[in-house]
Amino acid sequence: MVRINKNFERVAPNYLFSEITERTRKFREENPGVKIHRLGIGNTTEAIPPRIIAGLRAGVEKLSNVRTYTGYGDEQGDARLREALVKNYGRRGVDLDSTEIFVSDGAKCDVANIQSLFADTIVAVQDPAYPVYVDTNVIAGRTGEFREGKYSGMIYMPCTKENGFTPELPDVQETPGLIYLCSPNNPTGAVMDKSALEKFVRIARDKKSVIIFDAAYASFIKDPNLPRSIYEIDGAKECAIEINSFSKICGFTGVRLGWSVVPRSLVAENTEPGKLHSMWNRRQTTFFNGASNIAQEGGLAALTDEGIRESQELVKYYMENAKIIREALLNKGIAVHGGINAPYLWMENPNGMRSWNFFDKMLNEAHVVTTPGSGFGPSGEGYTRLSSFGHTENIEEAVDSIRRNLKV
Amino acid sequence: MVRINKNFERVAPNYLFSEITERTRKFREENPGVKIHRLGIGNTTEAIPPRIIAGLRAGVEKLSNVRTYTGYGDEQGDARLREALVKNYGRRGVDLDSTEIFVSDGAKCDVANIQSLFADTIVAVQDPAYPVYVDTNVIAGRTGEFREGKYSGMIYMPCTKENGFTPELPDVQETPGLIYLCSPNNPTGAVMDKSALEKFVRIARDKKSVIIFDAAYASFIKDPNLPRSIYEIDGAKECAIEINSFSKICGFTGVRLGWSVVPRSLVAENTEPGKLHSMWNRRQTTFFNGASNIAQEGGLAALTDEGIRESQELVKYYMENAKIIREALLNKGIAVHGGINAPYLWMENPNGMRSWNFFDKMLNEAHVVTTPGSGFGPSGEGYTRLSSFGHTENIEEAVDSIRRNLKV
Repeated sequence: MVRINKNFERVAPNYLFSEITERTRKFREENPGVKIHRLGIGNTTEAIPPRIIAGLRAGVEKLSNVRTYTGYGDEQGDARLREALVKNYGRRGVDLDSTEIFVSDGAKCDVANIQSLFADTIVAVQDPAYPVYVDTNVIAGRTGEFREGKYSGMIYMPCTKENGFTPELPDVQETPGLIYLCSPNNPTGAVMDKSALEKFVRIARDKKSVIIFDAAYASFIKDPNLPRSIYEIDGAKECAIEINSFSKICGFTGVRLGWSVVPRSLVAENTEPGKLHSMWNRRQTTFFNGASNIAQEGGLAALTDEGIRESQELVKYYMENAKIIREALLNKGIAVHGGINAPYLWMENPNGMRSWNFFDKMLNEAHVVTTPGSGFGPSGEGYTRLSSFGHTENIEEAVDSIRRNLKV
Repeated sequence: MVRINKNFERVAPNYLFSEITERTRKFREENPGVKIHRLGIGNTTEAIPPRIIAGLRAGVEKLSNVRTYTGYGDEQGDARLREALVKNYGRRGVDLDSTEIFVSDGAKCDVANIQSLFADTIVAVQDPAYPVYVDTNVIAGRTGEFREGKYSGMIYMPCTKENGFTPELPDVQETPGLIYLCSPNNPTGAVMDKSALEKFVRIARDKKSVIIFDAAYASFIKDPNLPRSIYEIDGAKECAIEINSFSKICGFTGVRLGWSVVPRSLVAENTEPGKLHSMWNRRQTTFFNGASNIAQEGGLAALTDEGIRESQELVKYYMENAKIIREALLNKGIAVHGGINAPYLWMENPNGMRSWNFFDKMLNEAHVVTTPGSGFGPSGEGYTRLSSFGHTENIEEAVDSIRRNLKV
């Protein structure tokens, strides 16, 4: 006889996107013929550029010929791709060994699985945050009851207007063992500067905690002074795992390719350097069988000079959208954050309206679907996430409708 | 402060393939110029056939055009692919709903992750077995000490010449909660017939255990009377999860595409029907972000009439290799099992030689690299796994060298 893992029952159902779909469906039903615009999509929409497509094509062609065919590759990823990523880190002055890089099928999987290396511990997350950090730790049994949008036993680091959406560890009795940071942030679009990251690195090193640094949106950083990798901070290699992805770099959301960096010098409270590195290696070789070899050929192409140039064009395209949204909102007197070094904009709802109420208002008046900030955590209440992912013509239509129809 | 998950320390290092590599390297060093043959590879070697390549190409081309581009897909897989798989099961008289199928990036990942749905329980595995069943449950903390090739607290079901390599549950006080079955089997090449499977289904239903059925080699079954899916057994939908893969069907080992079936009627001791299905859905939507959309287009092509025909040709190619190996060994008076409805052959080492001793003998005399049976579990001692994956010309060379040089 077998019983289920009861921790699955602890995860509060995430109604965010199903509720958005349901409210949109109802609006459509009650307002036939009205065109609905979307600023809620966290998904890439533009074609993958030519040089990178050529890489993917080459990946397929290799498999069509017995002389170039390859089957299982290394679970850790193609050596050439790991080397190319090392070279890319080198451009930012970050020195890594290629064996410290583990190629994966995307940042979400790594962000979800990384906690399995650790024993029971207190976990700290930003509030608001990408729900995967929270949910995977709930399923791993690291939390208690869910009440008023929070799990007991988990530390929430509020990111508010007052602190510039920069997380800080609250004054707690016990330092958390795992600290999840996401910069540029989803959903707030805020980017942590060096001094903010330095604080966390200092605490983590002092207390032997591990930082899980989600850098999936790093390629959207324009400001040369903002860190794109936590390893730009001295000492981070002893206390931080970095997770990144090709998804937003070059439109690989559906192609599935990412990577994690687990430095050899990383330590936990009861380990020597190298231990966590070899544990992640064991985890990946046991639970994973490598990213698609086609996707990896695409990733290699994305890291050529031409591929990098193309990716930067793609980022620029979305960031033009961000600018369009940002300026329209500011012109309307609405306060908005993010959208400068990140693809997400975080708007303060006019008159402090609650997130879902403003979602309805935006849908009813401007026919624009957005993402209620409260869906990302209690501190998201009163905010709305807007996304710059979309075709510019659609973004312009949505923004125009807000300009003309939203009553503030 | 954070400590590591101590269960990782319980996993015995698997030296099988590194030891093979090391002994082969040493032989090469000591015998320069000697050609080494390989019958140990569990990896596909032949090109992906044209219709399926066309599917992969179409997957890439879609992404190159803004009108056909898609980003994130459903974590559960493309609806068309799930429907095509349902249709395929229908050909064997198995009736499934497409929402019961979860597309993944390969059978290994699903086989590894599926245990996370369950609470602590006793696990039963075949002996010998694919190491992932064992190792993932060790990391999940379901076992005790490792001694003489076995973990305490785990049930090993010996598959021996005496029982026709068919697993049976030993007489134990407590029925295991999770039972891993692999048929056609890696490494023995044995296939469970209906009556053998019926026994397990009966016990599992009676005792509310769950069978994890690994069917990754099902496409190698020629005998129409042998079950290719556990759902050909009445009642299996209430007690079994089936995991399968495109890897060996059509050479997708590097492409990464598989699927799991979690029927809505599946139950555990403390659940209603539907519960485990929704838990796996929750697991996949939280920890996984879908298989590559390019791979999925390839999978769709593999399930067209032309794709199925091509895949069958590919299987036939490897099974011709199996026949060549089998006949040569039998002619030499060596007993060999499997290789008829499975790509693996399981040879009895002449004179009852121990696995590693025979590995050395085969390498030294015939210059053929094989896989020692003891690497798959204690009951593999005295056996050797031979693989039919390889180019026929290489298989023939290896077999010819055995014929001429191996002293038995």
